[in-house]
Amino acid sequence: MAEFTFYTVAMSRGQISRWALHEAGADYEHVMMEWDTRPESFRAINPMNKVPALVHHHGDHDHVITECAAINHYLAETHPEAGLLPDAHERAAYFRWLFFAAGPLEQAIMARMMGWELAEGKDSTAGFGTLERTLDALDGWLSAHDFAAGSRFTMADTYVGSQFVWGLRFGSIPERPAFKAYVERITQRPAYAAANAIDAAIIKGAQG
Amino acid sequence: MAEFTFYTVAMSRGQISRWALHEAGADYEHVMMEWDTRPESFRAINPMNKVPALVHHHGDHDHVITECAAINHYLAETHPEAGLLPDAHERAAYFRWLFFAAGPLEQAIMARMMGWELAEGKDSTAGFGTLERTLDALDGWLSAHDFAAGSRFTMADTYVGSQFVWGLRFGSIPERPAFKAYVERITQRPAYAAANAIDAAIIKGAQG
Repeated sequence: MAEFTFYTVAMSRGQISRWALHEAGADYEHVMMEWDTRPESFRAINPMNKVPALVHHHGDHDHVITECAAINHYLAETHPEAGLLPDAHERAAYFRWLFFAAGPLEQAIMARMMGWELAEGKDSTAGFGTLERTLDALDGWLSAHDFAAGSRFTMADTYVGSQFVWGLRFGSIPERPAFKAYVERITQRPAYAAANAIDAAIIKGAQG
Repeated sequence: MAEFTFYTVAMSRGQISRWALHEAGADYEHVMMEWDTRPESFRAINPMNKVPALVHHHGDHDHVITECAAINHYLAETHPEAGLLPDAHERAAYFRWLFFAAGPLEQAIMARMMGWELAEGKDSTAGFGTLERTLDALDGWLSAHDFAAGSRFTMADTYVGSQFVWGLRFGSIPERPAFKAYVERITQRPAYAAANAIDAAIIKGAQG
């Protein structure tokens, strides 16, 4: 049995965590599901009935971990030899942008996609403010630094970067120069190509 | 100079990170601001113009860290002697619920507060699904475990727990037994009382 069992759907946010599994060099097997036919038994693993979900067969214990950003960071922690954890001087930026992308950025993109508008004077209640403000904050950082944690690729980039890969692809994030250059840098990773090829082949097979 | 500078507003999410500063035993000084009179210079620290923001004066470097959950976890990492980091078997739950509370739960509460409704069939696009589903997921965990990471208090509880403290207080989260019991457990921490007394005194002074 592999050390990790990865529950996913080919065309889903699961692609973000499969990238992390390959970056970490994790020993995993996948359980591919379809949105419409997820078995009821999956709710015992993730009561949100969402993918991705990862189960770590850890000695006598099975640990369930959900939320893409959490899964990806967990894989960095359990595979320190992959060198994807931040060092002491990268740690502030690593966690800052990881939580920023999972919180305010995700929330701002979703609000825009759903057509939700903040009422006047409510932008201090909603932590994300506006999509433009969240993008400006990241634009400032990525214009001055090549990666989320600073000058080198870390696990934070698999999550923060995926927001930009998907956002530029679907038009939910505008093509600013710093965002485009960042996407070009991170998508050159061999692990990115290897992980995506697996889901692409499954999607193609399902359509063929 | 203190090791950390903490920028906050007394009546704000800053209270969540002040609790973490006290749990960690961090050497910090605060810079108290008001919503309406935040100096323009604060934008150089946090371009989102949000509190809390923490600056770590770390050797020759100043590291900025924002987002409550990130700040709190960062304080656990920089103060390992406080014993608030998860061990190898607590780590999956620690990061799962920390990101769950900063992502889906925060998003679901905010959508409810703002009166935003998900269109039919869009609940797989929005990662949070519905507020009820996010609350059910946490209810299941907290009915079986005393704390976010398992059987003991960790730094994850300062953030996950604060969502419940504030949610029950403002009525944005219903008073389910598991939530009430959890709030009772975590608010007994001496660091919680010490941190809150500081902001309460400032709020009282401003009103007096």
